[in-house]
Amino acid sequence: MSDLLGVAVLGAGHMGADHIRRLDRVVSGARVVAVADPDTARAKEAAAGVDGVTVHADTEAALDAHGVQAVFVASPGPAHEEALLAAFARGLPVLCEKPMVPDPAGALRVVEAEARLGRRLAQIGFMRRYDSEYARLKALLDSGRLGRPLMLHCTHRNVSSPPGFTSAMLMDSSVSHEIDAARWLLGEELTAVRVVRPRPSGGAPAGLADPQFVLFETEGGALVDVEVFVNCGFGYQVRCEAVCEAGSARIGEDHGVRVAHAGADTTGIPQDYLVRFADAYDREVQAWVDATRHGRVTGPSAWDGYAASVAAEAGVRSLETGQRVTVEPGEPPALYRA
Amino acid sequence: MSDLLGVAVLGAGHMGADHIRRLDRVVSGARVVAVADPDTARAKEAAAGVDGVTVHADTEAALDAHGVQAVFVASPGPAHEEALLAAFARGLPVLCEKPMVPDPAGALRVVEAEARLGRRLAQIGFMRRYDSEYARLKALLDSGRLGRPLMLHCTHRNVSSPPGFTSAMLMDSSVSHEIDAARWLLGEELTAVRVVRPRPSGGAPAGLADPQFVLFETEGGALVDVEVFVNCGFGYQVRCEAVCEAGSARIGEDHGVRVAHAGADTTGIPQDYLVRFADAYDREVQAWVDATRHGRVTGPSAWDGYAASVAAEAGVRSLETGQRVTVEPGEPPALYRA
Amino acid sequence: MSDLLGVAVLGAGHMGADHIRRLDRVVSGARVVAVADPDTARAKEAAAGVDGVTVHADTEAALDAHGVQAVFVASPGPAHEEALLAAFARGLPVLCEKPMVPDPAGALRVVEAEARLGRRLAQIGFMRRYDSEYARLKALLDSGRLGRPLMLHCTHRNVSSPPGFTSAMLMDSSVSHEIDAARWLLGEELTAVRVVRPRPSGGAPAGLADPQFVLFETEGGALVDVEVFVNCGFGYQVRCEAVCEAGSARIGEDHGVRVAHAGADTTGIPQDYLVRFADAYDREVQAWVDATRHGRVTGPSAWDGYAASVAAEAGVRSLETGQRVTVEPGEPPALYRA
Amino acid sequence: MSDLLGVAVLGAGHMGADHIRRLDRVVSGARVVAVADPDTARAKEAAAGVDGVTVHADTEAALDAHGVQAVFVASPGPAHEEALLAAFARGLPVLCEKPMVPDPAGALRVVEAEARLGRRLAQIGFMRRYDSEYARLKALLDSGRLGRPLMLHCTHRNVSSPPGFTSAMLMDSSVSHEIDAARWLLGEELTAVRVVRPRPSGGAPAGLADPQFVLFETEGGALVDVEVFVNCGFGYQVRCEAVCEAGSARIGEDHGVRVAHAGADTTGIPQDYLVRFADAYDREVQAWVDATRHGRVTGPSAWDGYAASVAAEAGVRSLETGQRVTVEPGEPPALYRA
Repeated sequence: MSDLLGVAVLGAGHMGADHIRRLDRVVSGARVVAVADPDTARAKEAAAGVDGVTVHADTEAALDAHGVQAVFVASPGPAHEEALLAAFARGLPVLCEKPMVPDPAGALRVVEAEARLGRRLAQIGFMRRYDSEYARLKALLDSGRLGRPLMLHCTHRNVSSPPGFTSAMLMDSSVSHEIDAARWLLGEELTAVRVVRPRPSGGAPAGLADPQFVLFETEGGALVDVEVFVNCGFGYQVRCEAVCEAGSARIGEDHGVRVAHAGADTTGIPQDYLVRFADAYDREVQAWVDATRHGRVTGPSAWDGYAASVAAEAGVRSLETGQRVTVEPGEPPALYRA
Repeated sequence: MSDLLGVAVLGAGHMGADHIRRLDRVVSGARVVAVADPDTARAKEAAAGVDGVTVHADTEAALDAHGVQAVFVASPGPAHEEALLAAFARGLPVLCEKPMVPDPAGALRVVEAEARLGRRLAQIGFMRRYDSEYARLKALLDSGRLGRPLMLHCTHRNVSSPPGFTSAMLMDSSVSHEIDAARWLLGEELTAVRVVRPRPSGGAPAGLADPQFVLFETEGGALVDVEVFVNCGFGYQVRCEAVCEAGSARIGEDHGVRVAHAGADTTGIPQDYLVRFADAYDREVQAWVDATRHGRVTGPSAWDGYAASVAAEAGVRSLETGQRVTVEPGEPPALYRA
Repeated sequence: MSDLLGVAVLGAGHMGADHIRRLDRVVSGARVVAVADPDTARAKEAAAGVDGVTVHADTEAALDAHGVQAVFVASPGPAHEEALLAAFARGLPVLCEKPMVPDPAGALRVVEAEARLGRRLAQIGFMRRYDSEYARLKALLDSGRLGRPLMLHCTHRNVSSPPGFTSAMLMDSSVSHEIDAARWLLGEELTAVRVVRPRPSGGAPAGLADPQFVLFETEGGALVDVEVFVNCGFGYQVRCEAVCEAGSARIGEDHGVRVAHAGADTTGIPQDYLVRFADAYDREVQAWVDATRHGRVTGPSAWDGYAASVAAEAGVRSLETGQRVTVEPGEPPALYRA
Repeated sequence: MSDLLGVAVLGAGHMGADHIRRLDRVVSGARVVAVADPDTARAKEAAAGVDGVTVHADTEAALDAHGVQAVFVASPGPAHEEALLAAFARGLPVLCEKPMVPDPAGALRVVEAEARLGRRLAQIGFMRRYDSEYARLKALLDSGRLGRPLMLHCTHRNVSSPPGFTSAMLMDSSVSHEIDAARWLLGEELTAVRVVRPRPSGGAPAGLADPQFVLFETEGGALVDVEVFVNCGFGYQVRCEAVCEAGSARIGEDHGVRVAHAGADTTGIPQDYLVRFADAYDREVQAWVDATRHGRVTGPSAWDGYAASVAAEAGVRSLETGQRVTVEPGEPPALYRA
C-alpha cells in the first residue's frame, strides 16, 4: 500500500493533539492534511511539524480542504452532531470520539442520518474494544468456556476530577465507557439502571456525588455493577470481573486475564516471543525509522553486537570444559565510547 | 514529516517476513522498497501486497535498488557480516538482527569497519532494550533508588527447541539476549563466565544439554546468573530480578515491575488513561485507518454511540431521583443489525 | 496455667465433631468433658478417643455433667435459643456457632436474657473476626490511614450448595457472615438492604435464586455490596475490598492485604521469620508433642542434622577458597535408612 | 488424651522463651515442667506464669527434674552435643533446634550415639518441613506431575544481620535451612558446593561477604542455587522455585504455591471454608478458651448475633419483594454499648 489516507482532524485540544501525533508518527498509512479548531493558535501548535497540513477555524472548511478522505472528530461533545452530519453530507468516513453526541435526541438524529445514507460511515471512539485485555475477555466469554455471564463487576477510578466536573458527568463521561463495554461484552442491551450514592468522599469537591454505585440490568437478566470514583486519589484503575456460570474472569490488574475455574486461579503464559515482545519489536523498528529519517543512529551498537559474541563464545567454551572462562573483548574503539 | 524512508529488507524467512509486515503496516514513516532472499519465491511471497517493492536474489542488487535509503538485515547470522560491510560501503544505515555476527572474529571486523568510517551506521537488534518493562527496570536502576545492583537473576525459557538446536546454541542464540541485557542494565562489561549443567531434562532431545545454568561476573563484581531452558514445555518466560543494595526489582511476571523495598512488595499503578490505554488508542486508530483505506467501516457504530447516550441519560435520572429508571433505546435501524 | 477448662459441646454433627477435635488436639488449655446430641451414636463417634468425656442425648444433662465450666453450642440453629438460655441459667460462658438464633424474635429474647444477667456470657461464632486478613483489614481501617471507608465490595462463593438449600438461606446462612463483617469493619449499623437477582446460573438447582446481589446501606451512608453465589463451581472464595477516601484495600486473594494507595499497589513483606514461619513453628512443636505422646519419633533426624552440618562446612570452605568443594557425609547408619 | 507431656526446655533465650510460650499456650497436650539456663534470672523470667515448672542452671538437673518425659533443646549450638547425649543417656525424646551440632565431627558423634541406641530419639528443628507451602511443594514434587526436578532456585533474605555475624555464618546459620530443604524436597544427598561472592553490599557491615551465591550439586545431577543476603534491608523473604522437566513451582510469594504448567500460571483455590478459615477457627476457639479461663468474655456478642439476624431477615424480605427494606434492630441494651 502506498497512498496515505488524508485525514482532517477536528479539535486540537488535549485529545485532538494526541491523535494528530498518533496519525503522524505512530500509525502506519495515514497523514493529517487538515486541522480545525476555533482556536486557530492551538490548531497551529498541534499541527506544527506535520508536513503539508492546513489549519482552519471552521469545520466545513477543513472538510473541504484538499486531500481530505476521512475525518477524525476530537472536538468537544456538543460539536459532534454538526461535524458528523457534515461528514455524512460529503460521504466521508469518520472516527468520532465518545460521547458520540451527549444528548440522546441528537444522537438519534445522527443514527437516522446514517441510516438514510444506507451505509456506515461512522466509527465511535469506544477504544476499550481495542484494549488487549478487553479483547481477550470478550473472546473468552464468546467461547462459552465459562458458561453464560451472570454479572459484571466494574471499577472505574480516576485520581481526581478536572475542574467543573459534575455529578452527572460521572455517568455521561466516565460510566459511558462501561456502558459500551457491557453491551459489547455481553452482547445484550441494557434495560434498566439504578444509581446508589454512598456518602461522598472528603477527597471530592464539595457537592460532587463521588463515588457512585451504578447497577444496570440487561435484557437477558444479567447484572452490571459499576463503582465510579473520580477522586479516588491513588491511581487510574479500570477493572472488570465477569462472573459466569462456570467461572469468573478478571481484567485490569497487572495487565492480564486471570481466570478462576475448576479449582484454580490462572493467568496465561505467552507461548512465544512474538507474543511477549510484539510491542518491543514495534517500538524498536519505529525508533530506528524515526532516527534514520533524522540522520541519527541510536540503539545497540556494533560494539554491543561484538561484545555479546565474545561473551557467548566464552560461554560455549565453559560449557564444553566445565571451567570458568574469562571474557576479553578488549577496548572499544573511540566511536563507541559514550 | 512526509517522505517515507525507503528500506531494503535482506532475508525473507520468518523474521524477515514479520519485519516486512511491520514496516509496511505498523510502523509509521517507512516503506519497503526492496526485498532480497536467495529463495526468491519466498521473497516474493513476503513482499506480496507491498506497493512498489522490488524482489532480488542478491544482497548487492537489493542495496542498489531504486529508493533504498536504509537496510534491514534479517538474513541468517552467517550472512550478516557481508551484508553489514556492503551497507557500510554504501553509507547506508542498518538495523541488523542479532546475532550481529556469530563468530567474534567476524564481529570484530564489522566493528573495525564501522570505526574506520568514523560514524555509526549500525543498530543491532537487541530488542529487549525497547521492551517497556526492561526500560522501566533500567530507569529504576539508573535512578539509584535501590542502591547499586549486586546480582541479576535471569530466566530464559522456551516451550521447545527447533530441530537442529545444539547445546552451544543455548548460549549463542538464547543467552545472548541476557548478555546484552546485563551489560546494558548494569552498564558494565562481563569479565568471566561459568556454565554448570544440571541433569538434562527428559523433555529435551537426546544429547542436548538443556537446561543450563550460566554465571557471569562483571568488571565491577556483580553476578549475573541465567537459567536457560529451551524445552521447558510450559511457556515462554523471560524474567529478570535485579537484587540491589536496598531492594530488588523483578520483571517478566504478569507484565509489570514489582519492587520489594522498605517492607513492601509493590507494583505501580498508572496515573491516567493515556498510560493505561496507550496501546488501545494506537490499535483503534490503526484499525480505523486500515479499514478506511480499504473502503470498509468497522468498530463501534453510531447505534452504539446512541445506545450509550440513552443509558447514560437514564443513569443521570436515577442519580437525581434515587429510583430505578428503564433504559429504552428502541429498535436499531436495519443498517446496524448484524 | 495448669487446670484445663472443662467444656460441654452441644451438637456432634460436622461442625461439632470438628470443634471437639480442635478442643482436644489443637487448642491449648481446654478439655472436652461432655458431648450432647440427640443422635447419641453420632455423639459417641465424635467423642471417641477423648479421655474422660461423657456422652448425652440431652442438653440439660450435658450442662450438668461433672466438670463442665463452659459450653460450646454447635447444634443446629433452631436449638440455639434453648441452649443459650440453659447456659445463662447456670451462669456458664458460651461460644455459640452462628446463626445465634435464626429468627430475630428469638435472638432478641437471648439478648434480653443476657442483659437481665447484667454481664456477658455469650460469644457468637463470627469467626471471620479471627481471620488474620480480616484482622489486618480492620486494623488498617481503624488506623484512618486510608480515610473513611465509603464502600465494601464483598464476594462470597461456594463450589455448590448442599441439598435443601433455599433462596432465603443465601441470606440467612451465607450473607450473615458479611453482615457481621461489615458491621464490625465499619463500626456502623446497617440501615437498609436491597437484593437484586441476576438470572440464575444454570449450575444452580432449579428454583434457587443463585447468585444474588445484595446492597446494604449503613447509618453513616456507606454502601456494602455482596455477591453471593453458592454454586459457582470453581472454588470457595471470600473476598472483601474496602474502598476508602484515600485508598482501597483488598483481602481474600492469595492470602494477604493488598493496598492501593498513592500510586502503588502494595502488599506487606514480613520483617522476620517468627512472623513468616509462626505457623510452621506451631505445627512443628505440635507434631513433636503428638508423636512423643504416642511413643513415636518422626520429623528430621540426627542424620539430617549431621548432613546439613557437613554441607555447611563444605560451603564455608568454598567461600574461603573460591573453589568447588565436595560434600562427603558418608553412608548413614541403618537406623536412618528409610 | 488427658495426660500432658512433661517437657524440659534447655535454653531460655529468644528462641527458648518463645518455645516455652508455645508449649504452654499454643500447643495442645504438653506442659513445661523444667527450664534450664546458665542465666537463671533469664530462665525464671521465661518460666514466669507457667504452673508447676522448676528452674535450673544446669542441664543434667533439668533432665532429672520430676515429670520430665521429653526435652526441648533451645540452647546455643555449641551446647547441643552435650544436651543430646545427656537426653540419649536417659532415653528421653528430644526436639533439638538447628544447627544440631555446628561442627561435623560433633554431629557425627551424636549420630553414632543414637545409632548405638538402635532407636530414634531426636527430631531436629528444620521447621520448614512443617511450613504449609513447603509441604505442598514437597507433595507436588513427589507426585511426579511436573516430572523430575532439575533445579531449585532459592532466595534467603534478612533485613539485617545481628552483631557479630560472620561470613561463615551465612552458610552455617542461614543456608543450612536451604541445605535441609533441598535434601528433603529432592530426596537426594548434596555432593558438591561452590560459593561465589558478588561485590558486598554497602548495606552490610564492613568485611562481611554479603550477599553470597551458593551452588550445590546433588548425587542425581540436580542443581540448587541459593542467594543468601542477610542485610537486604527490605524484608524477610524465603522463596524457592523448583524447575522440573514439565513445569515449575514457586513458593514464598504471597503465601501460595504458584505453578507454571501447560501454558498457564496457576494457584490453587481452596474448595471449602474449613481449608480457607482453618486458622481462624483455631484462633477463635483458642481466644475463647483463654478468655474464659480468665473469667472474661470477649469477641462477638449476643447483640451482634441479634443484629445479624435482623439484617438477614430484612434481606430475605427484599429478595422476596424486590424492594428496599429498612433494617431496624433498635437500640442495644447498656450491656452491649462499649
